[in-house]
Amino acid sequence: MTRSLGVAVVGFGWMGHAHTRAYLRARHHYPNLPIAAHLVTVADPEPGRADAAAEQYGFAGSTTDWRELLTDPRVEAVSVTAPNFLHREIGAAVAESGRHLWIEKPVGLTGDDAHAVAAAATEAGVRSTVGFNYRAAPAVAEARALIANGAIGRVTNARFRFFSDYAAHPEGALSWRFTRSHGGSGVLGDLASHAVDLARHLLGDIESLVADTVTVIPERPTVTGAASHFSRADGPPGPVENEDHLNALLRFTGGARAVLEASRVAVGEQNTYGFEIHGTTGALAWDFRRMGELSVSTGADYQSQSYRTVFAGPGNGDFGAFQPGAGIAMSYDDTKVIEAAGFLRSVAEGTPYGPTLDDAVAAAVVLDAMLDSVRTGAWVSL
Amino acid sequence: MTRSLGVAVVGFGWMGHAHTRAYLRARHHYPNLPIAAHLVTVADPEPGRADAAAEQYGFAGSTTDWRELLTDPRVEAVSVTAPNFLHREIGAAVAESGRHLWIEKPVGLTGDDAHAVAAAATEAGVRSTVGFNYRAAPAVAEARALIANGAIGRVTNARFRFFSDYAAHPEGALSWRFTRSHGGSGVLGDLASHAVDLARHLLGDIESLVADTVTVIPERPTVTGAASHFSRADGPPGPVENEDHLNALLRFTGGARAVLEASRVAVGEQNTYGFEIHGTTGALAWDFRRMGELSVSTGADYQSQSYRTVFAGPGNGDFGAFQPGAGIAMSYDDTKVIEAAGFLRSVAEGTPYGPTLDDAVAAAVVLDAMLDSVRTGAWVSL
Amino acid sequence: MTRSLGVAVVGFGWMGHAHTRAYLRARHHYPNLPIAAHLVTVADPEPGRADAAAEQYGFAGSTTDWRELLTDPRVEAVSVTAPNFLHREIGAAVAESGRHLWIEKPVGLTGDDAHAVAAAATEAGVRSTVGFNYRAAPAVAEARALIANGAIGRVTNARFRFFSDYAAHPEGALSWRFTRSHGGSGVLGDLASHAVDLARHLLGDIESLVADTVTVIPERPTVTGAASHFSRADGPPGPVENEDHLNALLRFTGGARAVLEASRVAVGEQNTYGFEIHGTTGALAWDFRRMGELSVSTGADYQSQSYRTVFAGPGNGDFGAFQPGAGIAMSYDDTKVIEAAGFLRSVAEGTPYGPTLDDAVAAAVVLDAMLDSVRTGAWVSL
Amino acid sequence: MTRSLGVAVVGFGWMGHAHTRAYLRARHHYPNLPIAAHLVTVADPEPGRADAAAEQYGFAGSTTDWRELLTDPRVEAVSVTAPNFLHREIGAAVAESGRHLWIEKPVGLTGDDAHAVAAAATEAGVRSTVGFNYRAAPAVAEARALIANGAIGRVTNARFRFFSDYAAHPEGALSWRFTRSHGGSGVLGDLASHAVDLARHLLGDIESLVADTVTVIPERPTVTGAASHFSRADGPPGPVENEDHLNALLRFTGGARAVLEASRVAVGEQNTYGFEIHGTTGALAWDFRRMGELSVSTGADYQSQSYRTVFAGPGNGDFGAFQPGAGIAMSYDDTKVIEAAGFLRSVAEGTPYGPTLDDAVAAAVVLDAMLDSVRTGAWVSL
Ligand SMILES: NC(=O)C1=CN([C@@H]2O[C@H](COP(=O)(O)OP(=O)(O)OC[C@H]3O[C@@H](n4cnc5c(N)ncnc54)[C@H](O)[C@@H]3O)[C@@H](O)[C@H]2O)C=CC1
Ligand SMILES: NC(=O)C1=CN([C@@H]2O[C@H](COP(=O)(O)OP(=O)(O)OC[C@H]3O[C@@H](n4cnc5c(N)ncnc54)[C@H](O)[C@@H]3O)[C@@H](O)[C@H]2O)C=CC1
Ligand SMILES: NC(=O)C1=CN([C@@H]2O[C@H](COP(=O)(O)OP(=O)(O)OC[C@H]3O[C@@H](n4cnc5c(N)ncnc54)[C@H](O)[C@@H]3O)[C@@H](O)[C@H]2O)C=CC1
Ligand SMILES: NC(=O)C1=CN([C@@H]2O[C@H](COP(=O)(O)OP(=O)(O)OC[C@H]3O[C@@H](n4cnc5c(N)ncnc54)[C@H](O)[C@@H]3O)[C@@H](O)[C@H]2O)C=CC1
Repeated sequence: MTRSLGVAVVGFGWMGHAHTRAYLRARHHYPNLPIAAHLVTVADPEPGRADAAAEQYGFAGSTTDWRELLTDPRVEAVSVTAPNFLHREIGAAVAESGRHLWIEKPVGLTGDDAHAVAAAATEAGVRSTVGFNYRAAPAVAEARALIANGAIGRVTNARFRFFSDYAAHPEGALSWRFTRSHGGSGVLGDLASHAVDLARHLLGDIESLVADTVTVIPERPTVTGAASHFSRADGPPGPVENEDHLNALLRFTGGARAVLEASRVAVGEQNTYGFEIHGTTGALAWDFRRMGELSVSTGADYQSQSYRTVFAGPGNGDFGAFQPGAGIAMSYDDTKVIEAAGFLRSVAEGTPYGPTLDDAVAAAVVLDAMLDSVRTGAWVSL
Repeated sequence: MTRSLGVAVVGFGWMGHAHTRAYLRARHHYPNLPIAAHLVTVADPEPGRADAAAEQYGFAGSTTDWRELLTDPRVEAVSVTAPNFLHREIGAAVAESGRHLWIEKPVGLTGDDAHAVAAAATEAGVRSTVGFNYRAAPAVAEARALIANGAIGRVTNARFRFFSDYAAHPEGALSWRFTRSHGGSGVLGDLASHAVDLARHLLGDIESLVADTVTVIPERPTVTGAASHFSRADGPPGPVENEDHLNALLRFTGGARAVLEASRVAVGEQNTYGFEIHGTTGALAWDFRRMGELSVSTGADYQSQSYRTVFAGPGNGDFGAFQPGAGIAMSYDDTKVIEAAGFLRSVAEGTPYGPTLDDAVAAAVVLDAMLDSVRTGAWVSL
Repeated sequence: MTRSLGVAVVGFGWMGHAHTRAYLRARHHYPNLPIAAHLVTVADPEPGRADAAAEQYGFAGSTTDWRELLTDPRVEAVSVTAPNFLHREIGAAVAESGRHLWIEKPVGLTGDDAHAVAAAATEAGVRSTVGFNYRAAPAVAEARALIANGAIGRVTNARFRFFSDYAAHPEGALSWRFTRSHGGSGVLGDLASHAVDLARHLLGDIESLVADTVTVIPERPTVTGAASHFSRADGPPGPVENEDHLNALLRFTGGARAVLEASRVAVGEQNTYGFEIHGTTGALAWDFRRMGELSVSTGADYQSQSYRTVFAGPGNGDFGAFQPGAGIAMSYDDTKVIEAAGFLRSVAEGTPYGPTLDDAVAAAVVLDAMLDSVRTGAWVSL
Repeated sequence: MTRSLGVAVVGFGWMGHAHTRAYLRARHHYPNLPIAAHLVTVADPEPGRADAAAEQYGFAGSTTDWRELLTDPRVEAVSVTAPNFLHREIGAAVAESGRHLWIEKPVGLTGDDAHAVAAAATEAGVRSTVGFNYRAAPAVAEARALIANGAIGRVTNARFRFFSDYAAHPEGALSWRFTRSHGGSGVLGDLASHAVDLARHLLGDIESLVADTVTVIPERPTVTGAASHFSRADGPPGPVENEDHLNALLRFTGGARAVLEASRVAVGEQNTYGFEIHGTTGALAWDFRRMGELSVSTGADYQSQSYRTVFAGPGNGDFGAFQPGAGIAMSYDDTKVIEAAGFLRSVAEGTPYGPTLDDAVAAAVVLDAMLDSVRTGAWVSL
């Protein structure tokens, strides 16, 4: 028998929608999931937004105050999809109340924030899943499997890049994203967190690093009232307080080296999120823009060894839960369905599936070390 | 207020799942849809399959005999996702019973079959939608809009290709797909029907054509019992009765010329479905394997005019109903959600949205003409 | 000891330069060639052009009248790089005079023209090489070797495309290229001749075909005086007499099927010359724009078998005569050096190397059949 | 009137051939060059090699001792294409003898070496050209022009990568390349020197950097006797003394940031030499493997601005000296012809054309700084 789990969603922007849909779709793709989510309530302070969400998706209730969830006995698990600066407060409170937690990355503004939420979850003995969903892409899962199987030998060097153009327009409004108190470390928490998680997921722990950051657009027009992600503004200019662009060199405990780049102002790049990994006998490359393709060079040639383009298919990660044949497109949202299924399974079985708060802490510690490195101009050991 | 529409699904293989999920997801992406589907019943003769479907997706009931739907007053609309040779019988009966019809391509084995279903629907005054879902890809919608706006000038020539490897293995079982009575015209109905629909959708009516077909693997091992799409077998060899591969030249009433190719035995090709279209001032190209990308050459250069790679985004077709920014992956299933939304809207408003039975008839007539051309060795006018 | 061969070049446009450079460079890449060319004389009626050529490249003499070569005892071999309509007259005269012949494609305007030149060469017992230089690209040589070795199984279907934009501008002058008397069959002789030669070279003889042609820009501005390839004009419009675009279906004697397309008015395409070839166990694809890359799918998978991108290197065709490692770029001109080396070797050894007049005749016969097919609207057997 | 310049070539391996061919071909592509090279002599200690070179290319003489050139009055200019560890001695001696110098990168093993050669050339008042030939690729020239014209705005960040697999085989012989005394800084001098030169050429001076290096294959089999670039060996293992792989972060005086990577052991990579450059309004990318293609994103969109693939053509750098239309392939060797023409022109006109010894010094100083950074673990200012 399938058990039912009451869930709530806090914060109903892009990710609020994505988590909700993923809860609803989990059983479409994982018919044997031991737990099915039912939508209890949704919280968002923006007038009307929670109500509309309830109407659209069928939550039993809605509220503007997320604290109400903490006392609602029907709510057994909570998705935290509010802005970063609220992750710590909400995340810790949810965990302390004994509820399981599916929380978006980067889990706060600093390693300290992530640590606080993780400690609360451990203390309360609840399950946690963190929104590092690029792991879930079947081609990424296949990359990890190939590395683990030794298909490319010992990993020697790698490159991780997360480039976006979402803040590339100089007239983009000076929203909360560009302040340190609310937007944290800018592109580090926003995009580099994913890159660091993929780096750890694929290559293991990072030993030391050196980083360089730059604020490419140092001033932006201020805005009166609320500003969405892509709003333009024309108020007097105010200072951008956090990072637009990051370059870093990494060393892994296993000996591999890497470069890692992240940008939120990269004109020409829409979701250029990916990696290239070289080993002693082969190489792998992936780009989210072609999510289902993995470039693979394996063999015993060492020299003049070609790459082949493999279209993910049944047998690669969770692909088979979505499509019957290689090369049939999966979506970004599907990676969230995989994540939801992992979360539900982790609640059912009491063991983690997929990225957890420990991973969030580990990634946040790396990001903190990058800021340290920028401050000191030196390599930082982890 | 949103009206509720009782739906049934007949045939619960790949497409049965896809239609069901699409009904359930339509409101996730189209919150203002005037009609929401609720799942009444599902029919499939395969033991246990309909029951499992009901359990997984929440149909109120299930049956092994699709005829029961015809007398169930809760069923107002039916998805016909059974094999091709049943489309005519089931499709016509559904329409005659006054139920709206979402039916998979190719709508039977011949133009005659498609015509019979279309006539029944017209007679009964019911809405119809046909599963030509490649139209729904935002990049394809954008291609159509660009052509309509004159962005590439007058269309002069084009290429349509639908290549798959699903029947490429010579030990693939001699299933019903390879008989003329049950599999019809082989790759023509299966894949070329999509290509012809895209050709018509983008370039208008076809005036005449010449075609060449070949059965690349003339014998396959027979099989005892049911054989799924990809089963292997080792019985004594039996004859393949229909087409593995098609080449054709087309002339359009608007003056454009094209080549059209389809194969089910193309080793190396997983869903190589796409087109290239040239006009007097520009060109477009699309490949389903990179569903969200459209190659576009426009301008006033005529010579040395480059192509750019455009990632579909909000503003291209229905992209905005799925993702907030260009380059974020949509899935094959999302195209079925778009199709479902069109079907539901067409029922609500009494006007067609997207591909209808008229399109199915038009495509089937073209496929018939191709077979005629092969038989006669001559150009055939439509 | 290396023997020296006196050569002349007739017609000093693009190809005149290319042949001359190739003669000079042959020993740079083939130090063991038994024959070295020395430049005796060059003929071109355009005032000053032959003189300038002699000055630039070191021909001993120059002339405006190609007939002078026929009586110059120093001239033992002749490159015919004049316009198509002169190929027959010059080519036959050169051969009849007992001189070896390196002649550009298409060798006249018709199969009859090509045949006349070929007959003269046979009669005189001279060697001939024809400018089908795409054969010489190492990736093409590798493709041929792979097919011959059975690496893709039995060839089942193919596609050949030669698309250019050189005549895409509607204000391009109505030069001799667009008249039937001087430009022959337009895009057929100009580009489709290469495509047909590659088709034959890779897949063997063509058995039958059906073709469709169109003149996309039916009128162009007339011009007074000489007009080069890319001149614009603004005289009163006059009729284009020959073909801008070709589509054809082919059947090969070996059983394979193909589509073949050629265009001189394809906006967006600069030298989109290439092929895709499918066999029962694999596939190959090549595009001249990435001359050194061959896409290869081989193996025993039949389904979900990937393509790999192979960069041509030593071991593929004549690559090793040019560069020491895979992936180092060769040029268009290098293919002419390979052709020159073959021509010189054929003279030295008395046996053909590379494409000969027999190939030119075979290709021209196919082009004639295409025009027949357009005229009759029927398949034509060869 | 064209003046003739007597040239000698010292070191007749790959680059000896390349320089020689380039001298011979310069006038094929630059008919108006005021100087034509004639081949006086060639020096190489390898038995028979210089003689064979003279025989193949027509040098008037040959020798095993490069010092003989210094007293040969016919020799006015010298190509130094011997191994790196000889660059300083030969280069300085050639300059001191008053001969012009075309010398291969990296011009010695250290900045000190490069500086010594440059000082000698300045002192003697001779012209110098250095083999940074990737600058000469027309697509690179176009990239530089676009940046200079402000087509991508102010440059903000970039990536330079030079990856090769030439030393990827663990059984590759422990040749001189892997010793510090003869092979210098390994991949730094060999490949990163090109990357640094392109970085400077495109983005201007480097202000500071931090670097990380690794010797991926720490031991290789020793070899008795001479070992060519790609020889395998099976002697007892000996230590590799220099760098296989480099990662670095760069800051430019103009404010831009970059990552730079170089490897000689990158399995899967054949000449993966290229860059990506982002500016405030656009971006550019180039990869030597597709030498004639430049990816360009320009416009006023900032967000969702696409890249287009531009095939280099007449008007881009020196393309027009080689081919008549965009997209027709040029070769690696053609970049050396461009370099030769620049060298000859610089001798004729007494002003530099293309990369000079000043550039070699500048690049070598950056490489030294990288080694410093590795040693100190800190950022190094230049
Ligand atoms: N895993 C991934 O790929 C992605 C993760 N994210 C993460 O998801 C989180 C949310 O991002 P988006 O959905 O893009 O932001 P958004 O701005 O679209 O939505 C945030 C929502 O939170 C609501 N909110 C603000 N204060 C609240 C409060 N006190 N209580 C409840 N709700 C509150 C806002 O009204 C808004 O509806 C962020 O942490 C972000 O880093 C975002 C996009 C992609
Ligand atoms: N639009 C598109 O892209 C696609 C369209 N299709 C079309 O969808 C249709 C179904 O194809 P698939 O789902 O791939 O086939 P499938 O073989 O996976 O499923 C067919 C189902 O129909 C059931 N069935 C057989 N006889 C039946 C009957 N008398 N009553 C009810 N159900 C019956 C079978 O038991 C099976 O469950 C075909 O017409 C096909 O051409 C299929 C795949 C993609
Ligand atoms: N293999 C290949 O890839 C290519 C082959 N070709 C072929 O090469 C031939 C020449 O084409 P292009 O060089 O592009 O043409 P072009 O127009 O650049 O040069 C033709 C030259 O022939 C000269 N000419 C005209 N009448 C003459 C006469 N009576 N005697 C001597 N010279 C005469 C013209 O003055 C001109 O210099 C054509 O047959 C063409 O099909 C051309 C380009 C590429
Ligand atoms: N610009 C570019 O892209 C490239 C530059 N190079 C540079 O060119 C130089 C030569 O490299 P390769 O030609 O690849 O090497 P190679 O090993 O093929 O040739 C070097 C030649 O120098 C000769 N040599 C050794 N000692 C000599 C001496 N004392 N006097 C005269 N010759 C002597 C050797 O016998 C050999 O023939 C190196 O500095 C290398 O960095 C090499 C390849 C590409």
